[in-house]
Amino acid sequence: MSTDQNQPGPTGFPAVPAPDEQTRRQAVARHEQLTKPAGSLGRLEELGVWVAARQGSCPPRPFTRPRVVIFAGDHGIAAHGVSAYPSEVTGQMVGNFLSGGAAVNVLASNAGATVRVVDMAVNTDTPPVISAHKVRRGSGAIDREDALTAAEADAAVNAGRTIADEEVDSGADLLIAGDMGIGNTTPAAVLIAALTGTEPVAVVGRGTGIDDNAWMRKTAAIRDALRRARKVLNDPVALLRTSAGADIAALAGFLAQAAVRRTPVLLDGVVVGAAALVAEELAPGARQWWLAGHRSAEPGGPLVLDHLDLTPVLDLQMRLGEGSGALTALPVVTAAVRVLGEMATFAEAGVGGPTEAEATGPTA
Amino acid sequence: MSTDQNQPGPTGFPAVPAPDEQTRRQAVARHEQLTKPAGSLGRLEELGVWVAARQGSCPPRPFTRPRVVIFAGDHGIAAHGVSAYPSEVTGQMVGNFLSGGAAVNVLASNAGATVRVVDMAVNTDTPPVISAHKVRRGSGAIDREDALTAAEADAAVNAGRTIADEEVDSGADLLIAGDMGIGNTTPAAVLIAALTGTEPVAVVGRGTGIDDNAWMRKTAAIRDALRRARKVLNDPVALLRTSAGADIAALAGFLAQAAVRRTPVLLDGVVVGAAALVAEELAPGARQWWLAGHRSAEPGGPLVLDHLDLTPVLDLQMRLGEGSGALTALPVVTAAVRVLGEMATFAEAGVGGPTEAEATGPTA
Repeated sequence: MSTDQNQPGPTGFPAVPAPDEQTRRQAVARHEQLTKPAGSLGRLEELGVWVAARQGSCPPRPFTRPRVVIFAGDHGIAAHGVSAYPSEVTGQMVGNFLSGGAAVNVLASNAGATVRVVDMAVNTDTPPVISAHKVRRGSGAIDREDALTAAEADAAVNAGRTIADEEVDSGADLLIAGDMGIGNTTPAAVLIAALTGTEPVAVVGRGTGIDDNAWMRKTAAIRDALRRARKVLNDPVALLRTSAGADIAALAGFLAQAAVRRTPVLLDGVVVGAAALVAEELAPGARQWWLAGHRSAEPGGPLVLDHLDLTPVLDLQMRLGEGSGALTALPVVTAAVRVLGEMATFAEAGVGGPTEAEATGPTA
Repeated sequence: MSTDQNQPGPTGFPAVPAPDEQTRRQAVARHEQLTKPAGSLGRLEELGVWVAARQGSCPPRPFTRPRVVIFAGDHGIAAHGVSAYPSEVTGQMVGNFLSGGAAVNVLASNAGATVRVVDMAVNTDTPPVISAHKVRRGSGAIDREDALTAAEADAAVNAGRTIADEEVDSGADLLIAGDMGIGNTTPAAVLIAALTGTEPVAVVGRGTGIDDNAWMRKTAAIRDALRRARKVLNDPVALLRTSAGADIAALAGFLAQAAVRRTPVLLDGVVVGAAALVAEELAPGARQWWLAGHRSAEPGGPLVLDHLDLTPVLDLQMRLGEGSGALTALPVVTAAVRVLGEMATFAEAGVGGPTEAEATGPTA
């Protein structure tokens, strides 16, 4: 894993800018002036500081347009019995997103975020408003063929990049990526296994809730796909072409470009996490712009967090995807931003600091 | 720890009613019909079910009046060098609560809750609107004297009980208890050590951020107070009189009465947790109405959770008190309630269930 910010990424992503260190220090200093014992809000303090450094603003500004983009796509591997649900459910769930009935819709409403759905490779026709970037119907079965052609892989990464640009240009000040696609935890597991050097049995999960027979089929599929993935391990776009799919390739482009555009991202679970591993290869240092919303219950989730050195906000054993874990964490991040911005200082409130002998208080 | 609901508590609290088991089962069944793989929202599903069973309503109703009550009081032990801050800060922080500048104010606003402050034993005069239940100025130094007289202990427990009644009668449908009092983690540690059978060194924490010398003084104070506490271990009101203080005694009465009134409570950190241990003795089974908002960074926090068999929603290394941890968790609980109430079912959304061979999906 490289974090060198001066080298442009291998596929032409410009260098990822660093967060604002001076603002970070201001935010740390401000927290020590607020009416509470220093450090007593724990991680909540760190989250506020994190946002301040990304915004280059102390105190940080509450998010005005947190935005979820769900990247939907089908996967050829689903026909090989690796999921509890048939591929038709991908298109049906896209309809559910559009009519507002899915978990992501409720959780976005609860967190004050809005939702956009993008069809990258759903195996059915979808409305033009969501299919403008569609690359194909269903990506290839990665245990025996490439997920995408080279042109399709480039198109998918560029679509993700374009979508990030569109959202940032429309005022999005926090981005959340979501996933939808029956079978998509299989390519996610392959990417995670490949990039973290993990064996198939340690990265395979129950996904939508598969039984033992499907688990064996899924593990075998990951094993076979991993043989193909390892040949292109050092070329992130080739890895996406060989072992991901149009939805995950677009996710990777989206996550990388968000960082290039200095826009903070709240990561979701195992599929977004797999795309994040590749995005960090595409645009080294991008991970500095990402916060982990939660620790997925899928085995691959913690592997992603360890590899990217990210500490999750929540650990609620969630494994749905769609951006649901990130959206559940968003009100906590919002709370952190508001605490840093709205609490009174000791001076403002006329509250005394600690007694002289103490070394850890705000005035010592 | 007793969970027998048929025995009235020893101080006259009536038997605590059980949550509604039939509604709980309805909520579990409803979750299996919602458009997601069964169980894929993990703890978020359990939280929605928990609220439904307390409300006796499936789907559960979003909270309309979540209410924080902060119990403030000073402690004689603070004069013995166990805190990083002088006692004057308690009264100053009460002023900060009333003017809206404290962490609890910001976090309550973020979570849609309102805040009430009650002065039980602050060592200064406070406005009549918050001092109606005041028992005394500062509770006794518990390492060498009782915190309260018998009459004061009864008055404080009854004040907490009355305040819970007032809030429930005013429409509060979720209660959060908060604490404020320089030195209050010392009596909290004594209560936790006494009721969980823990040694002083394993329960003492840094509180507001004390140095090593203060830590030694605090540990010795806990040791001395614990000798006095153990003599009245089987009488919860006597334990409050000997080793707590008016604020913590009122907290215990409040938490017990909330359960008697079938009103769910989101617990905060180590001081509220210590009061909860006593409240469970006052009104056995009360803990069925409590959800743990977070795992406090104070050593006593996890001891309370283990003893009451509660799993925290958040683990963010918070240790401020005031209700801050519970309020940070509240939007997550709200998300859980809304997911169970607002998501579309498979039938409503026209989304297919899992394929036949699978055993863990909603239609299998």
